[in-house]
Amino acid sequence: MKPHKLSIVGVGHVGSAVLEKAVALGLFSTISLVDIKENVAFGEALDISHSMSSSLNANTIVYSGGFEAVQDADIIIIAAGPSIKPGCSDRLTLAKENTAIIADVMTNIVKYNTSAVIIMISNPLDVTTYLAATKFNLKKGQVLGTGTTLETLRFKYIISNLLKVDPHDVYGYVLGEHGNSSFPAFSTLKVAGLDFNDIQDFFNIKIDKTMIQENVIKTAYEVNNAKGWTNTGIAAGAIRIAKAILLDEKAVLPVSMQLEGEYDLNGVSLSLPCLIGKNGVEKRFTPKLFDNETALLKNSALCIRSVIENVGL
Amino acid sequence: MKPHKLSIVGVGHVGSAVLEKAVALGLFSTISLVDIKENVAFGEALDISHSMSSSLNANTIVYSGGFEAVQDADIIIIAAGPSIKPGCSDRLTLAKENTAIIADVMTNIVKYNTSAVIIMISNPLDVTTYLAATKFNLKKGQVLGTGTTLETLRFKYIISNLLKVDPHDVYGYVLGEHGNSSFPAFSTLKVAGLDFNDIQDFFNIKIDKTMIQENVIKTAYEVNNAKGWTNTGIAAGAIRIAKAILLDEKAVLPVSMQLEGEYDLNGVSLSLPCLIGKNGVEKRFTPKLFDNETALLKNSALCIRSVIENVGL
Amino acid sequence: MKPHKLSIVGVGHVGSAVLEKAVALGLFSTISLVDIKENVAFGEALDISHSMSSSLNANTIVYSGGFEAVQDADIIIIAAGPSIKPGCSDRLTLAKENTAIIADVMTNIVKYNTSAVIIMISNPLDVTTYLAATKFNLKKGQVLGTGTTLETLRFKYIISNLLKVDPHDVYGYVLGEHGNSSFPAFSTLKVAGLDFNDIQDFFNIKIDKTMIQENVIKTAYEVNNAKGWTNTGIAAGAIRIAKAILLDEKAVLPVSMQLEGEYDLNGVSLSLPCLIGKNGVEKRFTPKLFDNETALLKNSALCIRSVIENVGL
Amino acid sequence: MKPHKLSIVGVGHVGSAVLEKAVALGLFSTISLVDIKENVAFGEALDISHSMSSSLNANTIVYSGGFEAVQDADIIIIAAGPSIKPGCSDRLTLAKENTAIIADVMTNIVKYNTSAVIIMISNPLDVTTYLAATKFNLKKGQVLGTGTTLETLRFKYIISNLLKVDPHDVYGYVLGEHGNSSFPAFSTLKVAGLDFNDIQDFFNIKIDKTMIQENVIKTAYEVNNAKGWTNTGIAAGAIRIAKAILLDEKAVLPVSMQLEGEYDLNGVSLSLPCLIGKNGVEKRFTPKLFDNETALLKNSALCIRSVIENVGL
Repeated sequence: MKPHKLSIVGVGHVGSAVLEKAVALGLFSTISLVDIKENVAFGEALDISHSMSSSLNANTIVYSGGFEAVQDADIIIIAAGPSIKPGCSDRLTLAKENTAIIADVMTNIVKYNTSAVIIMISNPLDVTTYLAATKFNLKKGQVLGTGTTLETLRFKYIISNLLKVDPHDVYGYVLGEHGNSSFPAFSTLKVAGLDFNDIQDFFNIKIDKTMIQENVIKTAYEVNNAKGWTNTGIAAGAIRIAKAILLDEKAVLPVSMQLEGEYDLNGVSLSLPCLIGKNGVEKRFTPKLFDNETALLKNSALCIRSVIENVGL
Repeated sequence: MKPHKLSIVGVGHVGSAVLEKAVALGLFSTISLVDIKENVAFGEALDISHSMSSSLNANTIVYSGGFEAVQDADIIIIAAGPSIKPGCSDRLTLAKENTAIIADVMTNIVKYNTSAVIIMISNPLDVTTYLAATKFNLKKGQVLGTGTTLETLRFKYIISNLLKVDPHDVYGYVLGEHGNSSFPAFSTLKVAGLDFNDIQDFFNIKIDKTMIQENVIKTAYEVNNAKGWTNTGIAAGAIRIAKAILLDEKAVLPVSMQLEGEYDLNGVSLSLPCLIGKNGVEKRFTPKLFDNETALLKNSALCIRSVIENVGL
Repeated sequence: MKPHKLSIVGVGHVGSAVLEKAVALGLFSTISLVDIKENVAFGEALDISHSMSSSLNANTIVYSGGFEAVQDADIIIIAAGPSIKPGCSDRLTLAKENTAIIADVMTNIVKYNTSAVIIMISNPLDVTTYLAATKFNLKKGQVLGTGTTLETLRFKYIISNLLKVDPHDVYGYVLGEHGNSSFPAFSTLKVAGLDFNDIQDFFNIKIDKTMIQENVIKTAYEVNNAKGWTNTGIAAGAIRIAKAILLDEKAVLPVSMQLEGEYDLNGVSLSLPCLIGKNGVEKRFTPKLFDNETALLKNSALCIRSVIENVGL
Repeated sequence: MKPHKLSIVGVGHVGSAVLEKAVALGLFSTISLVDIKENVAFGEALDISHSMSSSLNANTIVYSGGFEAVQDADIIIIAAGPSIKPGCSDRLTLAKENTAIIADVMTNIVKYNTSAVIIMISNPLDVTTYLAATKFNLKKGQVLGTGTTLETLRFKYIISNLLKVDPHDVYGYVLGEHGNSSFPAFSTLKVAGLDFNDIQDFFNIKIDKTMIQENVIKTAYEVNNAKGWTNTGIAAGAIRIAKAILLDEKAVLPVSMQLEGEYDLNGVSLSLPCLIGKNGVEKRFTPKLFDNETALLKNSALCIRSVIENVGL
């Protein structure tokens, strides 16, 4: 019997929030932390270890180390590299910087572990996911990016606020890029059994799709501007995915993976609803989109593809 | 500050399963048990109290008593009376027996507590709910029946088995009677963003709606015949509702409540998607149904209405 | 990555309560049920599967089958055989019956799985544990009995009731036989940092050790007489142990294991505080007992040993 | 029925970690955040609200505001003011600064809420607790400080590391000041039923009490130096206390409260094992200490008392 192990590479604001939620989840026997700042990884491991005798936590061993610490991990979550600030202008610069970092991280990881499912968080997410998934001889579906999991959470929150219903009961997906070109697929939306048009009728409300799309993006800026970073939402997304893998749940989550002809798209990673089980992504779904949504998806793919090409992948 | 209290009236197979899940939920400070068999209530309280020092449980006080034990409860779950065996023939007999029991139970409850939200489980569910909700001067929405919460869980399980996806990711509602005339509203179904027709296309599968509808009913018989009763599914449904009330979640759940003109129906309780918060049912939704579904709903209402009239409510 | 699997052999009152708590724990990807009454196992699996789409549960596959269903299990919990009624008289008869059943169960289990950690619940617990641990070529520590885990929970509850403190904060162990000759080791008792004598002083209360010892035993009869069986307490104990194994927690729990000279005792299984990790029992502790407690322990060992010999092990 | 509400005053590193754990606990319907930096409170509320549709979370309303946002809170956790750096030298300066801040915070809180139980985290903890508990006409026990909850967690971790047992199974308390003069009461220590001397015998290990005492203090510096702050451990402590209050658990936790003659000490707040229920601290325990421990406790009291006097309380 092999107790489950998680490794987190990069324990800044996001990685430390992932750690917090991983311990709260209580499914891991061991969690190892790797960070270029070794003392930060050490400090995070020690701080959370102090809380392990709390009745709120199961007994989880948390420790820090070099890349050898990813050995035997069942899941590796990568949150390394500087955060991308939303905004198109300096995006390519950051893409170049982070793809170099992720290439280095992946090179080190595969020295010690080629069987773990890898969950990518580092931005630009779809580009780093494409890189990690395609250049290191890993199996199809073994690398996935948190993708529009976060935008989907935000979309549900925004709609739930509008309609005053529990966000868990807002069903629907944001698709495409993790970033500015993502879009809520209103074709997939259901609330209380009502679809998009019926929601407007029942609640006697006009929902401006473009404004909602913009708000999903804008609300990330709001958090960033107010507290200096975003972390708890993305951590919730990453750990939800990890749970689906560990328990082989066959959950459907909008994660990023390289496409193979879905919607006639290729050579790009982006988020579609995917089936998540012990092997990572085990199937991709292609919901029937509204016409304008298909256009938005293709635009999103172009946007990601141009970065992929510009960074020379 | 008032720590939360639950009372369970009737601790047979179903009530004891509700107790088990209520303790596991960890939201209640106190749980009181009332049963016509006082020793059974005493034994259930003592057995679970023995487990309270387990690190799996929070410290919850569980005790048994007469109806005075429902005093100060925030939520009362009624699982009293003999179980109805599915099948139309002797149904009316059981309806008469159980409405008498529930009338007695409610008469005793309101002596001690008129402010708790009441969750009805006893069958025939829609009839007992109608009785409890309309004859004891309680507020609209304060009494609700678990209704098709259970059929909805079963429907999701059946669809998830067919498509090999996590049942949490099957979205949709079974509506109408809790019992034989309930029906899955395929109009509300979504899996991975796909609606009913698209599911069939994507999975290359023909889904026979009538067969699914029958299976949702039949699978209850299967459990009943195999183990002699059903309890864990309905307990999960009841406790999910209790959580939505305690945390004022505004969750959408298909519960039973007397109608006031929805789909032109009146004088009957049945299940529609409802908004559940601290006041019980705070809103009812009327999803736009397929034509045949509207017919099924009206048939279901007639079926319940005829029992209501036959038992003289 | 191997998602975790549990098998439960015997799904009567105790086994079904174990199932309920195993699903609530949320650590298993798959749970298989084996029972001589195949339809009961089928019914329990189907009933709980219906609840799997509830947001209270993770997606766990639960199914029933013959002994081949224990294959690949990481943990096997055995709750097979009729329950022992407390009382010395007919105890040997039941011991003979159940050791035959457990011998048969174990013979079948080891055909399919020799690596799982086995948690025994069937009574007389220390005898069945001795049988399973010593006659099937399994590793030392791989088989353990829930033992006085349950009496310890009951002891804490009784003390907590007396002192009006959370039972989680009553520290101490009941040792010896799972059954009538068990005894609370008051030498191990601590409440709020106070030991046995100081508790009496601080709370200004006289605690009659013998009466507490008797109450720990008697309260099981009370539950049995009142509801017809006991199940939820023992299920909590078994699942607590399972969690310690799955997460390799190195938890200290009073479980039954064959002794190797502890307190000069051999040829018998009984409960001492043990270290529980991924290999089952990884260490046994020998707290320094009060003189009369050592005598009680030796008496308990004799009591178990006589049954072991009488059933011809 | 009043769904439970938490307010957090001060959402820096510690307060935001408290928020994270409060949401994970899932017992609160509403959480309000107050910070002198309004945008930080706003950002934290929005970031975690984005995650609320995750299946990991219940639906909790999180919002920020001025002090009016503490209205109707059942529990208020105060984590305001700059962190104290361990070290005797500049401690008084920080004490003066923070007592002024806490006086201001408390003055504002009692304008809107005089019934909530208040959990203090701000340092110097025992001084701020003394201030809040004694100068604002609140009931005895209504204000408590997290105190040596954190040192106790650390002590258990250190001992568990030494003995290779689950830290949950290390029983014992660190008492006195939250800070440099705290000390592990080895008189209260139990591991696997063994007391301090027996532990040394059984594990064949010499435990240097003074070194352990120093390590409990030093490890906080280690975290501070490595990651720049400590937060997750203290947050676990605060939320554990909050749970005990909300569920009226009567848990025993080492929290800070003004003394009334215990160990002949008065006019000072420090940590002893306390009974925590819906009213806050409902009882204090006075374990029988080793002689040198009583001396350490008196020294700790002097140390706190001198700061209380120096800041003019």
